[in-house]
Amino acid sequence: MKIQKGGICAPKGFLSSSIRCGLKKRKDDIGLVYSKFPAVGDGVFTQNQIQAAPVIISKLHLKENLMAQAIVVNSGCANCCTGQRGLKDAGTTAELTARQLGLKKGDVLVASTGLIGSFLNIDKVKKAIPALVKGLSQKKSSNFAKAIMTTDTFPKEVAVKIEIAGKEVRIGGVAKGSGMIHPNMATMLSFLTTDIYITRRALKLALEDAVDKSFNAITVDGETSTNDSVFILANGAAGNRLIDKADKEFKIFSNALGQVMQELAKMIVKDGEGSTKFATIIVKNCPTYWQGLKVGKRIASSNLLKTCIYGGDPNWGRVVAALGTCGIRIKKDSFDIYMGTEKVVKNGTATGRKTQQSKRLFKKKEIDITVDLKMGKETARVWTCDLTEEYVKINAEYST
Amino acid sequence: MKIQKGGICAPKGFLSSSIRCGLKKRKDDIGLVYSKFPAVGDGVFTQNQIQAAPVIISKLHLKENLMAQAIVVNSGCANCCTGQRGLKDAGTTAELTARQLGLKKGDVLVASTGLIGSFLNIDKVKKAIPALVKGLSQKKSSNFAKAIMTTDTFPKEVAVKIEIAGKEVRIGGVAKGSGMIHPNMATMLSFLTTDIYITRRALKLALEDAVDKSFNAITVDGETSTNDSVFILANGAAGNRLIDKADKEFKIFSNALGQVMQELAKMIVKDGEGSTKFATIIVKNCPTYWQGLKVGKRIASSNLLKTCIYGGDPNWGRVVAALGTCGIRIKKDSFDIYMGTEKVVKNGTATGRKTQQSKRLFKKKEIDITVDLKMGKETARVWTCDLTEEYVKINAEYST
Repeated sequence: MKIQKGGICAPKGFLSSSIRCGLKKRKDDIGLVYSKFPAVGDGVFTQNQIQAAPVIISKLHLKENLMAQAIVVNSGCANCCTGQRGLKDAGTTAELTARQLGLKKGDVLVASTGLIGSFLNIDKVKKAIPALVKGLSQKKSSNFAKAIMTTDTFPKEVAVKIEIAGKEVRIGGVAKGSGMIHPNMATMLSFLTTDIYITRRALKLALEDAVDKSFNAITVDGETSTNDSVFILANGAAGNRLIDKADKEFKIFSNALGQVMQELAKMIVKDGEGSTKFATIIVKNCPTYWQGLKVGKRIASSNLLKTCIYGGDPNWGRVVAALGTCGIRIKKDSFDIYMGTEKVVKNGTATGRKTQQSKRLFKKKEIDITVDLKMGKETARVWTCDLTEEYVKINAEYST
Repeated sequence: MKIQKGGICAPKGFLSSSIRCGLKKRKDDIGLVYSKFPAVGDGVFTQNQIQAAPVIISKLHLKENLMAQAIVVNSGCANCCTGQRGLKDAGTTAELTARQLGLKKGDVLVASTGLIGSFLNIDKVKKAIPALVKGLSQKKSSNFAKAIMTTDTFPKEVAVKIEIAGKEVRIGGVAKGSGMIHPNMATMLSFLTTDIYITRRALKLALEDAVDKSFNAITVDGETSTNDSVFILANGAAGNRLIDKADKEFKIFSNALGQVMQELAKMIVKDGEGSTKFATIIVKNCPTYWQGLKVGKRIASSNLLKTCIYGGDPNWGRVVAALGTCGIRIKKDSFDIYMGTEKVVKNGTATGRKTQQSKRLFKKKEIDITVDLKMGKETARVWTCDLTEEYVKINAEYST
């Protein structure tokens, strides 16, 4: 697997564009991704019960169509809690884009990010669509990455090249997200493009598996947004023979997609609102990956742990307090905890070791905390960041 | 019901004392509550799977004995994750206190609060016990309240007088807690005393009901401690005829106890680490109180909501995002949300009203947020505080 330039435009046949239509004050606020060739599409969406209009519309389009060829995304408005009017606005966005591109409405997916409860200014969006289509280019992936940012401080894109059955296949990805980030699923937006020729069902399987090990394994603040969407378009332009889920090449693709998405997920955590440190919670020897993920997410969501990561204080009691409320039955007398490489708890009891070494480790920018459950053979990793005064400042006056 | 002075020593026959034994640097760190007369006792404990040694010992004493006559509490050490040695230390504390007071070991309950993972300095505790017993007095309830404080900024005590079957009955209470506060159950320590003559099963029922509507309905930071304990001692010194749960006077007692504990619970929230504001989340028209409590607790635990309460920003989208992940099935198209008295969401859709009025309300020290689920007739209230830069500061370097 080789790292490529070009983000979502690295795979053959993909173009993007972005402009400012006026939903946000100072930056590009609407973007378009387009495949020149018909593509199979799929998506994974927030598990928040309250879902924004674009989520509902995109789900419908993916249900009714095998193919998807374009994605329109705006920042500056979530189009959530906007009732019938919101659904109409999201539908109009897809329809007008489809018309300009010569596609069916169902071929276009939509996504929004921004403040919940405001109506989308559809007149501004309508005016923007022709210019967006006109501006499509193979060289503007990073402009697109910037257009979908809200409180993000840096754009997030990545691309890789792999070999599938003798052909070069590329995967590109972009993501946004920095607050309201908590698994279940992604709590952010991410769009993946690839020129692999693959069946929809294999694409779905690869996407869902990759989401579980990337966007579902991160947390910034325990909050699940109403707008989270991950889309993937695969247009077959690489010219490989059709890949299905039983093919041995499927695993190569699936792994590469997983790594692209994990890279994007980690970027989101590193850009966590106000964050200064990056932590990996490793839960070893779990009965299943899912149970390990649950334990890891509970620990990674602890405000008290996140504040002491910020303070460089290896106070492992906070790992213990979170572990005991993790939602799965643990063995109280047999778990171990490591802060960095130092074993601080053995079989549920303090080892009593001085934490000088952990203190040094905790001053670092990137730290590991390991919990060994001794209950099975699976390992789950969850990525999180510290909770800082800056997070509070950023969020104390977001809407005003 | 009349408010009384004297906290836990207001009911007849109760004494308390406290001293500094050296577990903490500057303040009293160990306290004793004692009933001169045999008393029925009961307790409610943390639901964290990992439980501190004093929790395990006190549970055992309450299981094996109908009566309990004294409570020894230390701050400065949680005695948690301390294995067999921790259990022995907690047992020794109870045993030595019992011997000094002429009681059985099982008549003494123990509780600890402080850092997880340190062993209790049992020599210091041993030395302190004779002095504690010697210092017992009816006039020192507020010293006791101070001795159990950790990051608390003010002592928390209350007492009331009611009439039961023609006799005056008193209930006194004390609590500590300000961080690691999240229901399930109390995530704090609280001790209640009363001179009512009551059966153990009625006392248990009243205590459990009161916990659900007080300590289980608050949150500061979503963290459930390993040491939470609520104890009640009822010594019958008021001279009323024995009350059981079918008696009409039981309800009077149960209500009064509930109010005493609600008062203590609210004090804990008002003293929430770094907090500047107090919020009541009211969940109306729920199918059951429990479901309403679940919804209210989820909303009250949202970091994003808590930061905008701090900032005085009535950004109700954060209520929506939390509501959608509340863990019970809601009706997406029929809930209303009020910020203060202003209806901002009607039937799941933004009313579009300007939030000038909510902005004014949000500048106040105490605010209400109401969610009307329209799914039943029960109402639950949850109390919480804001999330501030000061919370982060306090917790970034707690153990160092």
